[in-house]
Amino acid sequence: MLQPERILRLEDDRVVFLDQRKLPTEEVDVECRSAADVAEAIRTMVVRGAPAIGIAAAYGYALAAARGEDLTAAEQVLRDSRPTAVNLGWALDEMRADPSAEHARSIHRDEVERCRAMAAHSAALLAPGTRALTHCNAGGLATGGYGSAVGALLSAWEEGLLAHVWVDETRPLLQGARLTAWELETAGIPHTVIADSAAASLMAAGEVDAVLTGADRIAANGDTANKIGTYSLAVLARHHDLPFYVVAPSSTVDHRTKRGSDIPIEQRDPAEITGRFAARNPAFDVTPAALITAIVTEHGVHEPPFAKSLARAVVAA
Amino acid sequence: MLQPERILRLEDDRVVFLDQRKLPTEEVDVECRSAADVAEAIRTMVVRGAPAIGIAAAYGYALAAARGEDLTAAEQVLRDSRPTAVNLGWALDEMRADPSAEHARSIHRDEVERCRAMAAHSAALLAPGTRALTHCNAGGLATGGYGSAVGALLSAWEEGLLAHVWVDETRPLLQGARLTAWELETAGIPHTVIADSAAASLMAAGEVDAVLTGADRIAANGDTANKIGTYSLAVLARHHDLPFYVVAPSSTVDHRTKRGSDIPIEQRDPAEITGRFAARNPAFDVTPAALITAIVTEHGVHEPPFAKSLARAVVAA
Repeated sequence: MLQPERILRLEDDRVVFLDQRKLPTEEVDVECRSAADVAEAIRTMVVRGAPAIGIAAAYGYALAAARGEDLTAAEQVLRDSRPTAVNLGWALDEMRADPSAEHARSIHRDEVERCRAMAAHSAALLAPGTRALTHCNAGGLATGGYGSAVGALLSAWEEGLLAHVWVDETRPLLQGARLTAWELETAGIPHTVIADSAAASLMAAGEVDAVLTGADRIAANGDTANKIGTYSLAVLARHHDLPFYVVAPSSTVDHRTKRGSDIPIEQRDPAEITGRFAARNPAFDVTPAALITAIVTEHGVHEPPFAKSLARAVVAA
Repeated sequence: MLQPERILRLEDDRVVFLDQRKLPTEEVDVECRSAADVAEAIRTMVVRGAPAIGIAAAYGYALAAARGEDLTAAEQVLRDSRPTAVNLGWALDEMRADPSAEHARSIHRDEVERCRAMAAHSAALLAPGTRALTHCNAGGLATGGYGSAVGALLSAWEEGLLAHVWVDETRPLLQGARLTAWELETAGIPHTVIADSAAASLMAAGEVDAVLTGADRIAANGDTANKIGTYSLAVLARHHDLPFYVVAPSSTVDHRTKRGSDIPIEQRDPAEITGRFAARNPAFDVTPAALITAIVTEHGVHEPPFAKSLARAVVAA
């Protein structure tokens, strides 16, 4: 397993990231020496994944405090780096009360602990021999260690419940083909990368038993924003009568956002899709709660109706 | 509009193809001087699209006849070049009776004429202001001229019915982002390329009115094999209560194949998906007839039950 401090860490005068844009071809670090540098690393997806960018923002804020930066400005530049993941705002709210390096590191440790708790709860949902399908990267790279949906798969594998993982390549930035496949390879879990558009035919052929994804923001009613393509999988899972599970820490649940239509969806550069023709490039979509079988946080398995069951999905003080 | 002879043509001692692998960046030709050369051009997707590879096989066979090649061997190498499109076998059956160059050229002319007839029938299905979504390339490049689903869009545009086209980029070979976008740009039709996985969220946002695709083989019951991802769109269209139209010439209808599960699905090189990890790369999927609103051939609009309505979808002598 990838060590949490290998993914991102705070040193005396810098935040160091494993550059996720270059994986798996190259393992290189990016060093950030100001809150603005960290915001740029988040914006350009050196680090990505909702829990990981929350941790990154916490480290960026702690760095700004240690350097004597204007903390209002530091908070703003970090908060504006990406719009959809709620963990970013959550981590900054946490850090405002205590901008110390130790606090930022405890946020990191706590996120990884939440992943381990989620994984234990999730594995209980899977039958022996499960062939799971996942989208994007909800692994250790996305959460600062262990992973949410991929963490659930790691636990299921350790418990002998998992037979195979289908990995959506996840266009346009290929987080599945680059990052999730790499994490599964490291863990020795059998996996096969597919084009995103091939998931439906695998389901029709009876080769998928469950779909597991992470989340970038979960509204109070259970509507879930996640990597573009997640909603498509949820519709396909419903059509093929397959369970669709969202695995995410309570720091991803935004009780202040009532429903999915209130979640801001980041539009990224069309050049990520095509260099020559007009393109539209939404980074996320929203899966309505009605298509989600269960949401798993560190507190356990939340079943519909989520408006009620998610009430206990809050970060423990 | 791209001239049919620019896409592929038979000359005295060669078949000349516009290399579709290099479009839109480069417009270069590939010259084939034997049936085996033509088979290789089909296999490597210099030319692709079910009707176009039927025409290519006809030209390859006529070339073999003109060169005095063993026609049994020539037919076999062409027939084996790709497994899913039925037009390939159909064109070779046609050519066996008359292997002349003129016959091959008449097959080409007839396919383009069929496209124009299909387009007229298809446009009648679309309401003014239609925002259509299409997958892969069912344009002139795929049919030897004018196009099937894209031909329908060209006609709808000329008749003032079409507002916009959403173009699935179509992983892994990006025929949508490269070929369909290029054809629509040439025709002056407003279009936007999207990641395949973004189609669902556009549908949910009410930005799509109809889905139109081509086909590689239509079974007697209406089950339709087409580029991987087509089935996914059909499920999504049904979920969002949108019409899903298949536009294809009668040469694509295979009355000898009873149902979709009898259609051979080509598995291509995993390296098209990922260089490093295990991948599965089916080139096609099968959309069950039950998800198809109508199939349009040059004979008109065929509605369910297709087993009955497709009976008249035969190539006119």
